[in-house]
Amino acid sequence: MRILLTIEYDGTQYCGWQIQPNGVTVQQKIEEAVLKLTGERARVTGSGRTDAGVHALGQAAHFDTAFNIPPEKFAPALNALLPDDIKILSSRQWQGHARFSAKKKTYLYRFYESETARPLFERYAARVRPLDVCAMDSAAKLFEGEHDFAAFMASGSCVKDTVRTVYSASVARSGGFVEFTVAGNGFLYNMVRIMAGAIVEVGYGKSPAFICRALDGGSRFQLGKTMPAKGLTLVSVEYEE
Amino acid sequence: MRILLTIEYDGTQYCGWQIQPNGVTVQQKIEEAVLKLTGERARVTGSGRTDAGVHALGQAAHFDTAFNIPPEKFAPALNALLPDDIKILSSRQWQGHARFSAKKKTYLYRFYESETARPLFERYAARVRPLDVCAMDSAAKLFEGEHDFAAFMASGSCVKDTVRTVYSASVARSGGFVEFTVAGNGFLYNMVRIMAGAIVEVGYGKSPAFICRALDGGSRFQLGKTMPAKGLTLVSVEYEE
Repeated sequence: MRILLTIEYDGTQYCGWQIQPNGVTVQQKIEEAVLKLTGERARVTGSGRTDAGVHALGQAAHFDTAFNIPPEKFAPALNALLPDDIKILSSRQWQGHARFSAKKKTYLYRFYESETARPLFERYAARVRPLDVCAMDSAAKLFEGEHDFAAFMASGSCVKDTVRTVYSASVARSGGFVEFTVAGNGFLYNMVRIMAGAIVEVGYGKSPAFICRALDGGSRFQLGKTMPAKGLTLVSVEYEE
Repeated sequence: MRILLTIEYDGTQYCGWQIQPNGVTVQQKIEEAVLKLTGERARVTGSGRTDAGVHALGQAAHFDTAFNIPPEKFAPALNALLPDDIKILSSRQWQGHARFSAKKKTYLYRFYESETARPLFERYAARVRPLDVCAMDSAAKLFEGEHDFAAFMASGSCVKDTVRTVYSASVARSGGFVEFTVAGNGFLYNMVRIMAGAIVEVGYGKSPAFICRALDGGSRFQLGKTMPAKGLTLVSVEYEE
């Protein structure tokens, strides 16, 4: 039986999603919980990696099991074995593949405007100078549609096909933060954090012309810095039913 | 020279504001920073205590010093010596007393509605069942005005005068949370957390009649539970100029 999990985590204490030799990861914690619950060494396959320090409101992952409980009971059973900063929001039986069946992912990048570090904002947002949110929102629209996002990929990545479709991108104020929300069919390594770095330059008053140039054939060097991981949250992964 | 500090902190890791024999407190961290900066063992006097785990967006505190820098420079100088979860938002010269001159304090209590614990909501909010926010907002109005809040004080407190004035109290949804905001001339020990526990009962469908009975002469036993510290934030302390 294949089980699909929807997972929320605070990534602050983790070296990202994917198991690695040094450092504790979210995938490892969930595989350990599955082992304790079922006695099975199952591979828990995520919709994709999240970097060290990135959060998730709705990561998706699947695993195969012969453990015989109703599918929806995996969530509470695993939660009893998971740390407080990783929780399964729901579990259900499923036929798909968490990575290959994903149709749409939505990410949120959160900024807060302050001259000094703010203890109650720092954990889930990047600190920035005052922003022109209207200019950012209009520049975000440049990302929408099918583009070659090669310039928005961390240098050193070896992905060949760098064309992705962004379904929507917008910037708005919410609860003391400035939020950049972007949905697409897939994202390159560090793509959202590089987009966020570009959009913040527009918020500081730079013309968005450099984003136009970087899209469809530009290079990484035309863009600003990669924004820190802590501001990024994987909001949801959607599948065809 | 007396300096007034406005302080933000994430209270998660601290045993509250006030120095105590066992456990690290916010006051202690700030006094240590003042000692390192000035060489003086100054007492940093807060507007009032906050309990273990309670947060602040705008705690106020004063200290006296002979250290000769412009008053507004204490904020950045102390921040360089403070941990990431405690920061001074501003510093200025002042004549008043952080506790006795306070005219108005504003607190925020944050809830989130979920059947299961949510890692990205847990740090700054209490988990509750679905709430009737309109009923809560209307019941919050019962707190407004001058009342004897004896029933809203932690049992064991020995404060004699339990009359306080609440200037405003309201409940609203904001950014995925339900927020109870209350401002008054002062608050008894655990008063906001007991108010929050009462208001959440109304959110669950209970008639607010028990709040009417508890105000002005009721006893602690007529109210619900004290809500957890992590949901509480001291938003601001205001002084007469």
